[in-house]
Amino acid sequence: MNNGYVNFGNSYLACTSTTVGKKEADGPMHEWFDATEQDEYFGKPTFEQAESEMVRRNLAHLFKKANVQDAGVLLGGDLLNQCTGTSFGIKESQMPFLGLYGACSTIAEGLLVGSMLVDGGYFPTAVAMASSHFCTAERQYRFTPEYGNQRPPTAQYTVTGAGAFLLTKEETKIRVADGQVGTIIDGGITDANNMGAAMAPAAADTIMKYFSNSGRKQEEFDAIVTGDLGMEGLELVQELLQREGLDISPRHMDGGVLIYDAKRQDMHCGGSGCGCLSTILGGYFVKRMQAGELVRVLAVGTGALLSASSPLQKLPIPAIAHAVCLEVV
Amino acid sequence: MNNGYVNFGNSYLACTSTTVGKKEADGPMHEWFDATEQDEYFGKPTFEQAESEMVRRNLAHLFKKANVQDAGVLLGGDLLNQCTGTSFGIKESQMPFLGLYGACSTIAEGLLVGSMLVDGGYFPTAVAMASSHFCTAERQYRFTPEYGNQRPPTAQYTVTGAGAFLLTKEETKIRVADGQVGTIIDGGITDANNMGAAMAPAAADTIMKYFSNSGRKQEEFDAIVTGDLGMEGLELVQELLQREGLDISPRHMDGGVLIYDAKRQDMHCGGSGCGCLSTILGGYFVKRMQAGELVRVLAVGTGALLSASSPLQKLPIPAIAHAVCLEVV
Repeated sequence: MNNGYVNFGNSYLACTSTTVGKKEADGPMHEWFDATEQDEYFGKPTFEQAESEMVRRNLAHLFKKANVQDAGVLLGGDLLNQCTGTSFGIKESQMPFLGLYGACSTIAEGLLVGSMLVDGGYFPTAVAMASSHFCTAERQYRFTPEYGNQRPPTAQYTVTGAGAFLLTKEETKIRVADGQVGTIIDGGITDANNMGAAMAPAAADTIMKYFSNSGRKQEEFDAIVTGDLGMEGLELVQELLQREGLDISPRHMDGGVLIYDAKRQDMHCGGSGCGCLSTILGGYFVKRMQAGELVRVLAVGTGALLSASSPLQKLPIPAIAHAVCLEVV
Repeated sequence: MNNGYVNFGNSYLACTSTTVGKKEADGPMHEWFDATEQDEYFGKPTFEQAESEMVRRNLAHLFKKANVQDAGVLLGGDLLNQCTGTSFGIKESQMPFLGLYGACSTIAEGLLVGSMLVDGGYFPTAVAMASSHFCTAERQYRFTPEYGNQRPPTAQYTVTGAGAFLLTKEETKIRVADGQVGTIIDGGITDANNMGAAMAPAAADTIMKYFSNSGRKQEEFDAIVTGDLGMEGLELVQELLQREGLDISPRHMDGGVLIYDAKRQDMHCGGSGCGCLSTILGGYFVKRMQAGELVRVLAVGTGALLSASSPLQKLPIPAIAHAVCLEVV
C-alpha cells in the first residue's frame, strides 16, 4: 500500500492570480499580489458576500491574465460553513466544480488533486483555488469584529485573500512535480487560539514523509514554505523535525509569518486562513520562480480540522498538512 | 474544453459498507444495510461525536468486510461545519485523507474523484465515503431536535447513515465506468425547507449532460437514482427533463423517497443528507448488482450548497449534482 506520495508527469502551472484585502496590501508582501481591495465589504452588504465577491473577481482575473475563457474543472474551498465563500463566488462561472475541504491546507490539496486530474488526462486544465476573509472567519469561529474582542498572544489573524492556480498538461516554465497527501495528526492541542501548535505536528509528519518517499534532499529546495503556522508554529515544526534529525531552518519560511509585519501591524503570531498560503505561494513564490530567482519550492499547506463547536465540546484540534513541490523546468 | 464528462478504464468497486440509525432501520430498506444502531448517540456524549463514531465504525466495517488492512487514500465529507463528522471519525485510521465538500452530492463526488485517482495510477485503492446524522443536521441548520419544531410539508428528514465504497484498480464484478462532474445551478429557490426544488434543476442539468456527453441511452440503465430530491424534487426533475424530451420516469428512483415509508414514518417529503445516497447506493443498489438483478445504474448525487446563514441573508440556494455510472462487468 502506498502512503500518500504522488508524482506527476505532466502537470504545469500556467498562471496564478491573487487578490487580498487592506491589511495584506499594507504588509511586506504587498508588491507581489495582483489585486488589492481597501473596502473589507468588497462593495457587498455582508462579509460573507464580500468573500464570495473576492473569489469571483480573483477567478475572473485568473482567466483574463491567462488569456483563456474557462478551465476544465474548478477545485476549491474555504473556511466558511459549507464552503459558501467558494460556491457563491464561482456559481456564475458555470464550470464543472469539485468542492474540497482541507481547512487552511485547501490550496495544497487542490494543487495535488488538480495535478492528478490533469496529469491523468481527465481534464485539459484545472483551477485550484482557496480563500479566506478576516471578518467572516472572526464572526464564525470567534467573535464578530465589531465586538472588539481582545486576542491572546498566540492568536493569528485570518488573511483576507483569494488565490487561484491554473494547471495545464502543456509544458510551461513551472512544473508541479510531486507531493505528499497528508494524514490527520491529533497532537492533543485544545486551545483554539493556538493553531500553530495544533498544526505543527501534522506539518512535521508530512515533511518527513515527503522527503522519505520522494528520495529528495532538502538541499534541492530553495524554500520549504509552510502555510500558516505563524511564529509559534514555525518554531515548533522546526523543533519537531530537528528531533528527527532534519534541520529545515536554513530554508524554512511560513506564509503566516511572511504576510504581515507582525509588530507594526499588531498581528500577534502572524497570518492564517486558506487565503494565506494561496496568495503567498501564488504571489511571492511563483513570481520569484517565474523570474528565475527560485528553482524549487516545497509548499506545505497546513489545516486545523476544528469547527466552532468542537473545542466547546472539549475535543482536541486534529490537523492535516499536504505538501506539493513546484519546480522550474 | 471538455465539459465535466469523465470516464475510467480501471476503477472497480471492491466492497461497500453501510451503517444507519434507528429510523432507517425501521424503514423499507432495512434489510439492505450492513449495520444499524438504535442509540442515536452511538454511545457518545454529543450528537456530533455520535456522527463521528458512526463514520469510524462504518470504515472499520468496510475494511473487515473487504478483508484488507487499509486503503491508499480516503476521500470523504459530511454536512457538519468544517466536515468534522468525517475528520474526527477517521483520524485514528492514519491514512492519507482528502476532504471533499459537495453537500449531499459528496458520495458521488468521492466516487468520481476516487475513480480518477485509482484509474490514473496514483493510488492502488481509494475509499469514497459520506455521512450525515439527523440530530447534528437539525441542530446546525434548523432547531435542536429537543425543541420539537414543526416541519413544513416540503421538509425532508436527514438520514442518519454512513456509506463507504472501496475502489480498486483490480477487476471486480462492478466497474465504475464513467460520470459527469456537475456545475453549480442556481434556480433561485430561497426556501431552506424545500431542498428538492433547489436541487432538481442541478440534477436535470447533470443528467442531460451525462447522456449527451457519454453517448449512452437511458434505456441502457436499469435505474437512474437521484440522491435525495425527495417526493417534491422527484416530480420536478422528471418535469424538467420531460421539457427537454427525456422521460426518465420508467427507471427513475430517488434515495430520499426509497429510504423511508414517508406516511407511516411521518417523513414528509422523504430523506436527505450525505448519508442518504451513500447508504442506499452502497446497500440496496450495489447488493442488487452483486446479485445480478441490476446491470447498470446511474447514481446522481444532489447537493444544496447553502449554509445556515446564507438563507438568512436572503441568498438563493445554489445546487450541484454529480453523476456516476456503475455497471456489472
